[in-house]
Amino acid sequence: MSKRPHVVIIGGGFGGLTCARALRKAPVRVTLIDRRNFHLFQPLLYQVATASLSPADVASPIRTILRKQKNAQVWMGEVTGIDPSAREVELSDGVRIDYDWLVVATGVTHAYFGNDAWAERAPGLKTVDDATEIRRRFLLAFEAAEREADPDERRRLLTFVIVGAGPTGVELAGAMAEIARDVMPKDFRAIDTTTTRILLLEGVDRVLPTYPPELSERAEEQLEALGVEVRTSTFVTGIEADHVMAGEERIEARTVFWAAGVEASSLGASLGVETDRAGRVLVEPDCSVPGHPEVFVVGDLASLTQDDGTTVPGVAQGAIQMGQHAARMIRAGLEGHGREGVGLEGRQREPFRYRDKGDLATIGRAAAVARIGRARLSGLLAWIIWAVVHVFYLIGFRNRILVMLQWTWAYLTYQRGIRLITGNPKVELQRARAPDELG
Amino acid sequence: MSKRPHVVIIGGGFGGLTCARALRKAPVRVTLIDRRNFHLFQPLLYQVATASLSPADVASPIRTILRKQKNAQVWMGEVTGIDPSAREVELSDGVRIDYDWLVVATGVTHAYFGNDAWAERAPGLKTVDDATEIRRRFLLAFEAAEREADPDERRRLLTFVIVGAGPTGVELAGAMAEIARDVMPKDFRAIDTTTTRILLLEGVDRVLPTYPPELSERAEEQLEALGVEVRTSTFVTGIEADHVMAGEERIEARTVFWAAGVEASSLGASLGVETDRAGRVLVEPDCSVPGHPEVFVVGDLASLTQDDGTTVPGVAQGAIQMGQHAARMIRAGLEGHGREGVGLEGRQREPFRYRDKGDLATIGRAAAVARIGRARLSGLLAWIIWAVVHVFYLIGFRNRILVMLQWTWAYLTYQRGIRLITGNPKVELQRARAPDELG
Repeated sequence: MSKRPHVVIIGGGFGGLTCARALRKAPVRVTLIDRRNFHLFQPLLYQVATASLSPADVASPIRTILRKQKNAQVWMGEVTGIDPSAREVELSDGVRIDYDWLVVATGVTHAYFGNDAWAERAPGLKTVDDATEIRRRFLLAFEAAEREADPDERRRLLTFVIVGAGPTGVELAGAMAEIARDVMPKDFRAIDTTTTRILLLEGVDRVLPTYPPELSERAEEQLEALGVEVRTSTFVTGIEADHVMAGEERIEARTVFWAAGVEASSLGASLGVETDRAGRVLVEPDCSVPGHPEVFVVGDLASLTQDDGTTVPGVAQGAIQMGQHAARMIRAGLEGHGREGVGLEGRQREPFRYRDKGDLATIGRAAAVARIGRARLSGLLAWIIWAVVHVFYLIGFRNRILVMLQWTWAYLTYQRGIRLITGNPKVELQRARAPDELG
Repeated sequence: MSKRPHVVIIGGGFGGLTCARALRKAPVRVTLIDRRNFHLFQPLLYQVATASLSPADVASPIRTILRKQKNAQVWMGEVTGIDPSAREVELSDGVRIDYDWLVVATGVTHAYFGNDAWAERAPGLKTVDDATEIRRRFLLAFEAAEREADPDERRRLLTFVIVGAGPTGVELAGAMAEIARDVMPKDFRAIDTTTTRILLLEGVDRVLPTYPPELSERAEEQLEALGVEVRTSTFVTGIEADHVMAGEERIEARTVFWAAGVEASSLGASLGVETDRAGRVLVEPDCSVPGHPEVFVVGDLASLTQDDGTTVPGVAQGAIQMGQHAARMIRAGLEGHGREGVGLEGRQREPFRYRDKGDLATIGRAAAVARIGRARLSGLLAWIIWAVVHVFYLIGFRNRILVMLQWTWAYLTYQRGIRLITGNPKVELQRARAPDELG
């Protein structure tokens, strides 16, 4: 029995999943391997962290997405190494899987610029568990403040620092400011949650550094309208249990979130090829790995400078398009394979070209910025476009309906539906107080 | 300034929350203390464990429920002791809170009949974290089976044992059998999930032992129609990593869930009064604690035998009605207080009378049993009543809409929306295999 070529895809994010689906009619066997059993719609993960959506609203089981694709199977497991010369990947339990084609799409995680101790104090936002941890810390701080007798400590509990003003940092800051202002006040008796401080720190001189400068300005205005204190050109030099050092300034704060540096998945290095400073694989123009036309790296893990000198940005669209491109190259290779002069070796390969569809970031209620082609939008219109685009790209009818419904509910009631503190529920206080008489 | 009497309520479940709300017009200060920041609608928690609902759909922040009740405040913290003579409760952080009236409503947790080692191997279902842990283990077993080479081990992975056939055990077993039969088959390639075995073990001679015998029969029929293997009069004598001992029988199974014994919250004992074998406080006919008319125990933590010899069952209705009763006694005590011959001492006290509204348990799609007054129902009609009653009692418009929507979706599509494996994602295998060619 002649076996169909085996395409192994590592990672079920935007890049890997798109690649798997684009191979649905190809005469191959596809094995998609992921540590998790679900695809995560990362652009809305900050809404899980800020109590607007449940994890399940932004995630779908990979098996269910691929259930009708007969040539694909899903393997839950952790790939720990790649051996390109043997054409094998190795899983954490020692199993080795042969491949004919390999697509590595394991993305990036957050990096603390060598300050590993910060990881514990300032969680980042990449996984569902990260999101529920951020939600836990954010909500718990208000609970602790309500019971805290010492006014300085109360102030520290109600000060939140977000490091990094890319889209994730901006979205977290805006959402948290809104919650403190609109959602919390009536729920607490002892504290005035409108005194909550949200500080957004950014190393370069503007928020959303990858966006056009005029949109950075609009975003900063909208953040400040929400009461967010934006500090640009500000580097974090220390994160301690009760304060953050921002250059010379000491910011008294108990809760810090990390939305700054990223670092490539360690699998990139195991390919044994050149990487950039963040560990991203320097791929060929067709997204393949130098010397290995049968191996592609797509999505955030790939570092690709196009002919025009622009680099492909680490966003969902970049990963989706690279995943499609890798699938196209694999299909082309299969067709040519066996015929003289064509095959895996990389002939017939086309360079990847990123089709820039624009940028979108939301700040809060009816507040967002958008770049679509040459158009620059901000405010309500940008926000509507943001919402429509995000619902459209969400996977699954169920998730689309639930997300729209919950957004409508949140919009109308100024509430957040998912204010649950799960996991370890301990409230740790400096000087807890007994309840006083109410006013 | 004359302080209003302080009513401290420990626990924000059905009993405590109902009591707090029933005191909304009373001239008291209410402090509701809970370890969690949310009220949990326990009757639907098994649906979180079986991937039908998200935690937030069956939980609401206690603060939000009480936000308009000006005489109430919510305190997130853990009560570790009660000193009835000093009229104080103590929190884990050492804070002591004075009370004039105390309502203890901390419920029960699962108990392993002295086999504490079983707790790790067979998680029970009391908290949101329990539910996501059960969901994780249930879904992970299928993922591991898909990758397992050894057929015996695959069989072990696809065998689930549920210990205890009360409502929780019956509901878990039915939902899990449906998922294996209706939801999973198309998603997996290597395993046939319809071969999944669900065993439901019960020590006494019928399922739902507290229900009328004819409903136990109906429930057992409906479970068996779903393929659940019901074993009554069967005692578990051992739970190991790869098998369960049920009397002399060795059941090869990797995944076990616990829905058997319960044990009272340890706070009951700290009252220094008589308790039953499970640690429940033997309360006076008015739900107060012997010798302390200002202290009430309500809900599952209370053991109360009524004049007619019946005991109040440990169900939501029992807790709700006892919470209302305690609030009524407190209001009556306040009115009488100061007048001659009446007051906290317990005069003017009425005995609690449980108004039995019936029993409801669901087994699966269009399968349930119900006792309403003298009526006994099963099948579709019972199931519709079950659904209507549960949506009606859910707190919050948002949750009602979302639950109805998700039930409708699940009913129409035979899907489960929340199939996420969160937390530690490791798949542990005996003999993992590499993917084979697909058929």
